Amino acid sequence: MIKNEIFFQNGDFFEDDIKWLYNAIFEQMQSGDIGYYNLVKGENIESIKSFAKEQRSVKNVVVIGIGGSSLGTKAVDELLCHSENRNDKNLIFFENVDPIEIEKNLKNLELEESLFIVISKSGGTIETTSHLKYLLSHFNISFESEKFRKHFCFITDCGSPLDKFGEDFSLKRFHIPLNVGGRFSILSAVGLLPLCILGYDIDKLLDGAKTLKDSFEAENQYELCQKALFYAKFAQTKPINVLFSYSSSFKAFNDWFVQLWAESLGKVNFDGNSVGLTPVGLIGSVDQHSFLQLIIEGAKDKNVTMIKVKDFGITTLIPDISLPHLQKTDFINSNTFTTLINAQCDATMQSLIDQDISVDLITIDTLDESSVGYMLFYYELLTSLVGIKLNIDTYNQPGVELGKIILQKKFEN
Amino acid sequence: MIKNEIFFQNGDFFEDDIKWLYNAIFEQMQSGDIGYYNLVKGENIESIKSFAKEQRSVKNVVVIGIGGSSLGTKAVDELLCHSENRNDKNLIFFENVDPIEIEKNLKNLELEESLFIVISKSGGTIETTSHLKYLLSHFNISFESEKFRKHFCFITDCGSPLDKFGEDFSLKRFHIPLNVGGRFSILSAVGLLPLCILGYDIDKLLDGAKTLKDSFEAENQYELCQKALFYAKFAQTKPINVLFSYSSSFKAFNDWFVQLWAESLGKVNFDGNSVGLTPVGLIGSVDQHSFLQLIIEGAKDKNVTMIKVKDFGITTLIPDISLPHLQKTDFINSNTFTTLINAQCDATMQSLIDQDISVDLITIDTLDESSVGYMLFYYELLTSLVGIKLNIDTYNQPGVELGKIILQKKFEN
Repeated sequence: MIKNEIFFQNGDFFEDDIKWLYNAIFEQMQSGDIGYYNLVKGENIESIKSFAKEQRSVKNVVVIGIGGSSLGTKAVDELLCHSENRNDKNLIFFENVDPIEIEKNLKNLELEESLFIVISKSGGTIETTSHLKYLLSHFNISFESEKFRKHFCFITDCGSPLDKFGEDFSLKRFHIPLNVGGRFSILSAVGLLPLCILGYDIDKLLDGAKTLKDSFEAENQYELCQKALFYAKFAQTKPINVLFSYSSSFKAFNDWFVQLWAESLGKVNFDGNSVGLTPVGLIGSVDQHSFLQLIIEGAKDKNVTMIKVKDFGITTLIPDISLPHLQKTDFINSNTFTTLINAQCDATMQSLIDQDISVDLITIDTLDESSVGYMLFYYELLTSLVGIKLNIDTYNQPGVELGKIILQKKFEN
Repeated sequence: MIKNEIFFQNGDFFEDDIKWLYNAIFEQMQSGDIGYYNLVKGENIESIKSFAKEQRSVKNVVVIGIGGSSLGTKAVDELLCHSENRNDKNLIFFENVDPIEIEKNLKNLELEESLFIVISKSGGTIETTSHLKYLLSHFNISFESEKFRKHFCFITDCGSPLDKFGEDFSLKRFHIPLNVGGRFSILSAVGLLPLCILGYDIDKLLDGAKTLKDSFEAENQYELCQKALFYAKFAQTKPINVLFSYSSSFKAFNDWFVQLWAESLGKVNFDGNSVGLTPVGLIGSVDQHSFLQLIIEGAKDKNVTMIKVKDFGITTLIPDISLPHLQKTDFINSNTFTTLINAQCDATMQSLIDQDISVDLITIDTLDESSVGYMLFYYELLTSLVGIKLNIDTYNQPGVELGKIILQKKFEN
């Protein structure tokens, strides 16, 4: 179960606003232009499961991909890697074109024990193709070899250059629906394939997302709409959205959120104005000792969403030891660390509210595939809703093309 | 060698402004109120080295600390862990009070192989004391035992509750100068002790910082002053400072910067106004696929500092392989990954400048103790300079106290 409570300053909206927003997004859903809404149906999931089954003897699951091709899988694995379902395979990412990272990744990486999943929606991402070239050379693999077909598979758009390359040499390929953008692709093969190989229950992941989608379609998600309207309304005066997640397991989830939010909502809108909301991902309680001071005393340009997990499935007690000279810390003795971290979340939230900062709280009962699927879809849906209200194309990223052109020109000269 | 080039919009200042800023900070340095400036002298460094020498047989260096007690050590170790000096000891942090993180940390952690370094400036940090209690209970250690004295040491303010506790039971203790704040403490025992045990050359680390300090005191750091004046001048209209570091090794350094910047500069100033600059840490090229779109097309409320490393000490070639259907990526073949990542840095910077975004570029020749020491002091000094111009107390953090009081009250009821 996931609960969302809202403590906004001036955050009430008229029934008409909410109705308008529901209608606008239902229209987008029904148009068929945006594909991620349909991923919850799990089409083609059987082919993913059967391929995953064949990978039982694989020791290293190696994802070659960047941005939307890596962030979602990382997020889910970090949230759930302590769970029973997770097998002991290694998950390795060739992501950044950083020679130090590449060298670290290659340590103890044997071809025979590894499956390389090459992921690129466009099929031509320079980081990903460069890694692929490097690994082919490093392991001395020819395109025609059995080794290539056995240890490599591709996830890409149907008909992309990478897809055609794979087709030429009979590689196993999975397709990303053409109308699903990279940063909205975690519930496609992009995320489901590696996660399934790692032992996660991908049906449950989709079920969690579907639970939210059904509830939303039944117009039972007032808070989601309220948040979207609120963020859009105060985009000029409160342009920074902080996600304050109380568990270190959320680090990669925060990064996934930052990409989704920044790349979707930072746009020139249909009226020609630059708009956008700046995401900041924090981890509690750690960042109480860092960014919190700025939120409390700095310019009042931030909203904050707190996430807490009720039950981590681990009961770790703070023992009843009174340290000499430190008796003032005795108040926490005999409580669990879960109680402490969640009390810190509550106390920080209260201190924010006391400063008239708009806050909402997401409480997750337990971390499992179902709640994680729900959370992924929650943020995708919230992004779409804010995008509608900001009057932008939420799903493109024209701003990053210029750098790619400049890069290529540097080498052509 | 480290070079800083500035490409600001309206970023020139009169000689008088620069002179004023130099004078203001020289006054602060000479007052003796702020201690971090003097850490470069390396007083008491011999006691750190001799204690570190005794830890040769230790396999796990375990830091129990949060915020300023952990971020700096993490930053330096991530930047340099690929270097020759780094020995093969494990570095483990008990930082967040997250039961999942605690469980992961305890895996294969044997007391006999470990040194626990408990770090808390105030001596009463609730996360740190809770971890300490837990570990004492977990390993069944009494205060009076030889085990406690052998496997634990404290780094804290002289006279703090933790210091007194250590004194009562004859534990090895190192002191943080009273006038050095936690987030400015990396070049005190807080950072130097664990880093020295891990094999790093801490003399060189201090030398790097001293190089910058000497150059600054000789008034040869125009760019630093220019940046500080620029950030302060545009604090209202460009309140977000992005640090875009082109290597995954900078992740923890970015986090260290975020704490330093947010907690130092997010303040109610001496005139009673809320001021502050919001730090964002990015990694290139990864975050070209994430946050970059927002910088380019979103609201023009951001400045960007790019960091690139000229030579990673590793030559990894992108092989001259032409992938079928992907010939358009051939332009990068036969170049090194270093050339690619740095060309991406240059291309992204050019695309930002083309959008009239104020940018500066820090070029580091090689990553070693000396350049890292320089970079740490660079950001500390920049923070102090901006703080002077913002008319704030850069060194306190009153905003986080309220949450601590609320937390304690929750348990007293």
